[in-house]
Amino acid sequence: MTGPERLSASRARQLDAADPLTTCRERFVITDPDLIYLDGNSLGRLPRATQDLLADVIGRQWGERLVRSWGEGWFEAANRIGGKIGRLLGAGGDEIILADSTSVNLFKLVSAALAARPGRHTILTDDLNFPSDLYILQGIARHAGDEYRIRVVPSADGIHGPAEALRAALDEDTALVTLSHTVFKSGYTYDMAAVTEAAHRAGALTVWDLSHSAGSVPVELDGAAADLAVGCTYKYLNGGPGAPAFLYVRRDLQAALTNPISGWIGQREPFDFAPNYTPAEGIQHFLSGTPPILSLAAVEPGVDLVLEVGMERLRERSNRLSEYFIELWKARLAPLGFQLKSPSDPARRGSHVALGHDDAWRINLALIHDMKVLPDFRRPDNIRLGIAPLYNTFTDLYHAVERMREVVVSRHYERYDGAGAKVT
Amino acid sequence: MTGPERLSASRARQLDAADPLTTCRERFVITDPDLIYLDGNSLGRLPRATQDLLADVIGRQWGERLVRSWGEGWFEAANRIGGKIGRLLGAGGDEIILADSTSVNLFKLVSAALAARPGRHTILTDDLNFPSDLYILQGIARHAGDEYRIRVVPSADGIHGPAEALRAALDEDTALVTLSHTVFKSGYTYDMAAVTEAAHRAGALTVWDLSHSAGSVPVELDGAAADLAVGCTYKYLNGGPGAPAFLYVRRDLQAALTNPISGWIGQREPFDFAPNYTPAEGIQHFLSGTPPILSLAAVEPGVDLVLEVGMERLRERSNRLSEYFIELWKARLAPLGFQLKSPSDPARRGSHVALGHDDAWRINLALIHDMKVLPDFRRPDNIRLGIAPLYNTFTDLYHAVERMREVVVSRHYERYDGAGAKVT
Repeated sequence: MTGPERLSASRARQLDAADPLTTCRERFVITDPDLIYLDGNSLGRLPRATQDLLADVIGRQWGERLVRSWGEGWFEAANRIGGKIGRLLGAGGDEIILADSTSVNLFKLVSAALAARPGRHTILTDDLNFPSDLYILQGIARHAGDEYRIRVVPSADGIHGPAEALRAALDEDTALVTLSHTVFKSGYTYDMAAVTEAAHRAGALTVWDLSHSAGSVPVELDGAAADLAVGCTYKYLNGGPGAPAFLYVRRDLQAALTNPISGWIGQREPFDFAPNYTPAEGIQHFLSGTPPILSLAAVEPGVDLVLEVGMERLRERSNRLSEYFIELWKARLAPLGFQLKSPSDPARRGSHVALGHDDAWRINLALIHDMKVLPDFRRPDNIRLGIAPLYNTFTDLYHAVERMREVVVSRHYERYDGAGAKVT
Repeated sequence: MTGPERLSASRARQLDAADPLTTCRERFVITDPDLIYLDGNSLGRLPRATQDLLADVIGRQWGERLVRSWGEGWFEAANRIGGKIGRLLGAGGDEIILADSTSVNLFKLVSAALAARPGRHTILTDDLNFPSDLYILQGIARHAGDEYRIRVVPSADGIHGPAEALRAALDEDTALVTLSHTVFKSGYTYDMAAVTEAAHRAGALTVWDLSHSAGSVPVELDGAAADLAVGCTYKYLNGGPGAPAFLYVRRDLQAALTNPISGWIGQREPFDFAPNYTPAEGIQHFLSGTPPILSLAAVEPGVDLVLEVGMERLRERSNRLSEYFIELWKARLAPLGFQLKSPSDPARRGSHVALGHDDAWRINLALIHDMKVLPDFRRPDNIRLGIAPLYNTFTDLYHAVERMREVVVSRHYERYDGAGAKVT
């Protein structure tokens, strides 16, 4: 196949036709087939099965069964769905549970980990981590007075995680290492087993944020001997806006760690209404308050779909889509000033690709408002293209690239000013 | 009207016919008109408007508008709905926000309050408080080492809050007083202004749990000079199972208090992705992580309905229903061994009535499984009857009492054993 043929729309259609997973797209509610949605790493699409399930949860479970539904599935939902996510992430069904938000779970696990490493005062992280995760660490440190120091190891290029520098920074004062497994901007993905092993050699615990990894890259929590992890369910797991997050505590650590937010759902016998808290056994005592059932129930069909397809096949498709996109970028976008801001090695890259451009902000506005392309923008100059292998297609990526070209070649983006207003 | 007439079914029907608020019941999804639902103080019924709204939130806002919905109402929902709850609770629109669960919010506000009262080491509460709230206090105290002491003032009779003993226990070591405004078992309701004034005289802060008060009794947070409050939205506000809770921070305290769980939604400019946390102004910095939108959106129609009817009219109806129920209890249930476990003074009682009985557990099982009455049970011997003035009727209460009589008079409850199994 010649260069121009490889870059044609018909080639994209051929690639879609040849892949049996292309039909997974039909499992989602898609009201506008012309919209190219590349923000599934921020909010995943609505699975059809979720819409059906929610009608039942609302109308029958809440409306008709009322409070009886707590005994008919609601109470065990956090464990049941957590167990399924465990299968995706290489963890036991008794090691993951759904609860709260990623931020609250990170607060709980980092607090618990610090308490389990008395005499150590350093929290190690990198500058590619979610700012939100850094904020939680700062809140914990501030609340504890001067006891803890947060050491933020910088990335050399803003793309690749500073794995070597982190290893070198580990010492006998390191209480824990906490990182985004797949970082939110560039999509760089750490070697979880290698970092964990180094942390353990130094006597430190690890807390992984899997928000951009769950449902997009294979993870083996138990295999990597990871200690603790958190992550959200509304990106590649398609659990719905702000859906409850998950938390992982390795089985042998569960009894030793204490949840600072010790609420009634984590109590051994919640319906005894005893005056003193006795933690439930296992993962259960990391729960705090009553879970938001509508949002919690919505998580399950998306997880089921990933399990049905299988993480390996999804990852393989994600890599083929991403490599195809990078091939298009090189031929069609690089000449227009777009730079690749993600690792070129697929083994170290999650399921999104970031492109930089001097006019990224205005290009992004033009794409959203006038070109029916929905990417994501991260300041100052980063257009992030989430490639969700369950519903994005080669044809999606082909047209996204052509529309990005059009916005730049025609100088269409100049219709917007830096504040986001249309100026012409 | 003679005694027997006052206790007749036709009298109940007359009372319903005479009250214009009886029609509010039609605003709810009621699939089985014969089911007497008296557990609205655990999980409120599904408003019809909520079912319609959720269909739109799921199908259009998530399914079609996707990530754009964050800018089209999702981000501001916590403030918008919080402001409406503020109107119910005598607080400014900028003093209440929806976030997390009641337990997590209590953790945040108690932690913040303790940090604002350095040198004081006592947390004052009572033994009628939610065990869950006590657990949260215990977790905070345990996590802080030996710094804090929780003093649980006992109720003299298990029904009335120990208001006088609490006042006497206040001293210069008291950092804060935290109580359920309406207590979960007996329904006793504190005089918020009086307790708060006493706490302030001692230099302490107050944290009120309004879970059983919101939507059931009039509350004037600003009028009482209350400092801090939390509460759930799934009881009398009919917000749905596990719906996000609210938190209140009095305007002049907002800048001085810090949220220990400092997540990205509480950051001044969440989309700047700056590496260091700067708290947002006002109530906003008490937010932590991304809110569960489906469960959050579901709160609004229930709150709107309470606002539409008006808290005063609802309270007046709640009192008439409760007084009617107590009249029936006295004539029909007291002779069968049922004791009143709630205050007889309506001014000191929320919107539920608790009855004790030596065989309460088995009576409760028979009511649920065989008599189409759904009350609530609290160990060891407490049948709790939630009277939700928006949808419970005089006729409901009449039939509930008659069915309770039947279960005892016919010794029907003896078909159950103490473990809840049917034995005959």
